[in-house]
Amino acid sequence: MPETTANGPDFSRGEGLLPAIAQDAQTGEVLMLAYMNDESYAETLASGRAVYYSRSRKKLWRKGEESGNVQLVRALYVDCDRDTILLSVEQVGGAACHEGYKSCFFRQVTPQGLKVVAERIFDPAVVYAKK
Amino acid sequence: MPETTANGPDFSRGEGLLPAIAQDAQTGEVLMLAYMNDESYAETLASGRAVYYSRSRKKLWRKGEESGNVQLVRALYVDCDRDTILLSVEQVGGAACHEGYKSCFFRQVTPQGLKVVAERIFDPAVVYAKK
Repeated sequence: MPETTANGPDFSRGEGLLPAIAQDAQTGEVLMLAYMNDESYAETLASGRAVYYSRSRKKLWRKGEESGNVQLVRALYVDCDRDTILLSVEQVGGAACHEGYKSCFFRQVTPQGLKVVAERIFDPAVVYAKK
Repeated sequence: MPETTANGPDFSRGEGLLPAIAQDAQTGEVLMLAYMNDESYAETLASGRAVYYSRSRKKLWRKGEESGNVQLVRALYVDCDRDTILLSVEQVGGAACHEGYKSCFFRQVTPQGLKVVAERIFDPAVVYAKK
């Protein structure tokens, strides 16, 4: 397990889990937010693909493992407190969200409630039926 | 205190605190990540300015209160799980980071260590000396 150093995120904050934002390297669109522990971070660096830690499944989550929609990491940043990670990624398949949208942030909060502001790129029922 | 409804973030997840990403409404640059509770979220909606909850100070953090660098909220999104908030903001003063950079993500992780990849916009020693 890699040690926390001044050269990267400080996993001692956030009880070992830090938020990681994935942003489209081309358009700047924010695609999703997930969490990383030191192991998923190390594998991300080593493989060049985004690997998160699933809080619900309590294990490494190799993004795109099922759907094929992997994220190729083009650049990686830490914030001033070294407790948030920003990934600049190329989203293979064009959709980061398991609901079939490019971005998980496909709904805007409006005075009338949530409004879908994006087009669906794939049908989750088809993509995840493969498993 | 506002109730959690299907019309917004689900604060019952994350023990009452959800991550909120601020993104430059013009350029798409990711400026920072902070946390919101339902009270700060409600005040953000009501005031049109980003209000976070400071985990270290354990109180509402009206962004820009000291520095003047408030964030005018142009649009607000929730993710598929309704446990992350995305704010599209106009960053007054041009700098979101208390270290004087436009974005808190001013350092890139490289094989040689952290590399500053942005220009400083203000000198923190001057701006925060006012208090």
